[in-house]
Amino acid sequence: MIDFLRAYKNYDPAAKSLFEVALLYPGPRALFFHRIAHFLFQIKLQFIARLVSEVSRFLSLIEIHPGAKIGKRLVIDHGCGVVIGETAVIGDDCIIFHGVTLGGTSTESVKRHPSLGNKVMVGTGAKVLGPITLGDGSKVGANAVVTKDIPPGKTAVGIPAKIL
Amino acid sequence: MIDFLRAYKNYDPAAKSLFEVALLYPGPRALFFHRIAHFLFQIKLQFIARLVSEVSRFLSLIEIHPGAKIGKRLVIDHGCGVVIGETAVIGDDCIIFHGVTLGGTSTESVKRHPSLGNKVMVGTGAKVLGPITLGDGSKVGANAVVTKDIPPGKTAVGIPAKIL
Amino acid sequence: MIDFLRAYKNYDPAAKSLFEVALLYPGPRALFFHRIAHFLFQIKLQFIARLVSEVSRFLSLIEIHPGAKIGKRLVIDHGCGVVIGETAVIGDDCIIFHGVTLGGTSTESVKRHPSLGNKVMVGTGAKVLGPITLGDGSKVGANAVVTKDIPPGKTAVGIPAKIL
Repeated sequence: MIDFLRAYKNYDPAAKSLFEVALLYPGPRALFFHRIAHFLFQIKLQFIARLVSEVSRFLSLIEIHPGAKIGKRLVIDHGCGVVIGETAVIGDDCIIFHGVTLGGTSTESVKRHPSLGNKVMVGTGAKVLGPITLGDGSKVGANAVVTKDIPPGKTAVGIPAKIL
Repeated sequence: MIDFLRAYKNYDPAAKSLFEVALLYPGPRALFFHRIAHFLFQIKLQFIARLVSEVSRFLSLIEIHPGAKIGKRLVIDHGCGVVIGETAVIGDDCIIFHGVTLGGTSTESVKRHPSLGNKVMVGTGAKVLGPITLGDGSKVGANAVVTKDIPPGKTAVGIPAKIL
Repeated sequence: MIDFLRAYKNYDPAAKSLFEVALLYPGPRALFFHRIAHFLFQIKLQFIARLVSEVSRFLSLIEIHPGAKIGKRLVIDHGCGVVIGETAVIGDDCIIFHGVTLGGTSTESVKRHPSLGNKVMVGTGAKVLGPITLGDGSKVGANAVVTKDIPPGKTAVGIPAKIL
């Protein structure tokens, strides 16, 4: 837990203490609720799970579907407008900025949201859509629209996103 | 009403029941308040109408001006950051994603927001600006900026949006 | 104060009275809280300052770091998703739309957010990143991503933003 809060503090020069991060940062708040919602989702209490995620959205402005699988030390910075879909998968040590969508492009009940590796960074306002893979250490520029895989370590920017 | 909730459920594979949609989805909540606000606006109780829309924004993160004219079975998915202006007009069976703006470009008190036909889809983060028309069945890509008409059935993407 | 509310009313044809602007517009609400938070920040009460800004974010959906320096008569329109960073500086008579970020690109504790001159307009969804300068009277188009200076009076659009 301390480990997790430290990830924010190390990364954000505006953070003055772990205490501040725990109480006043929306990202840790949303992930705290998500741990509960995801547990409820796994034991098939789907309505209560969604109720928890909706309360979390109200209190953090971050929307994470209870079904999403999230790794360790995810930093969601600022967070307003973030949407993470039901079948999204996020690895360890990723950073997601406000306004980012990990969204679906299918109306079938299949794996329809992105999978992020470890140490992936998604810039503010970027939309990552469909069951694509963002490799370890890849980056997405602000306001980019990504609908194809990004290889490990590469950066994608623009609409539609092109790999640099 | 049931008809309206069914539109969400049919479209979203993450929705498990109509009950869930009615209680936990921000879109139906915002449209419920908008029906009240729009009625108050029409009988010239503009301050109370705006109060209702502001409460709705707080509870749904969706901002719809009481003056906007909205057709049947509109789906607003996720919804955070949606802004629909005073003179916007939306047809039937449209889908609008989170972060979408139907905005104005004039500071004169004229028709200054877009008009959407039926079955129009506007992707997440797209900004549709000015008194333009999006034809029946047209689509707007994620994060696009649209300032010109889109013919029926066509798709527009990019900044500025180009028709495919 | 009246002067400040009048700036909204003059600019927004949907605003019917100063009373409506003061009570129902998120922008004035966020700036009211920011004046308090910025004062607390200057006398080194940083935790309480951040608490005030977090309450403001909850009530207005606008996130302004207590450290940001903001000039007179700033209009923040609609506001949902706006993020203004700790070392951002904003001149007088600027207009910022919803979804705008004045963000940082460094994890060092230096001047890392933009400086805006007077009468600058930043369109909805635009991300202005890094310690750059937007000259007096410059404009940024909707959903643009700006990482370089904009000369006075010029307009920048697109990803990455190009000067017209």
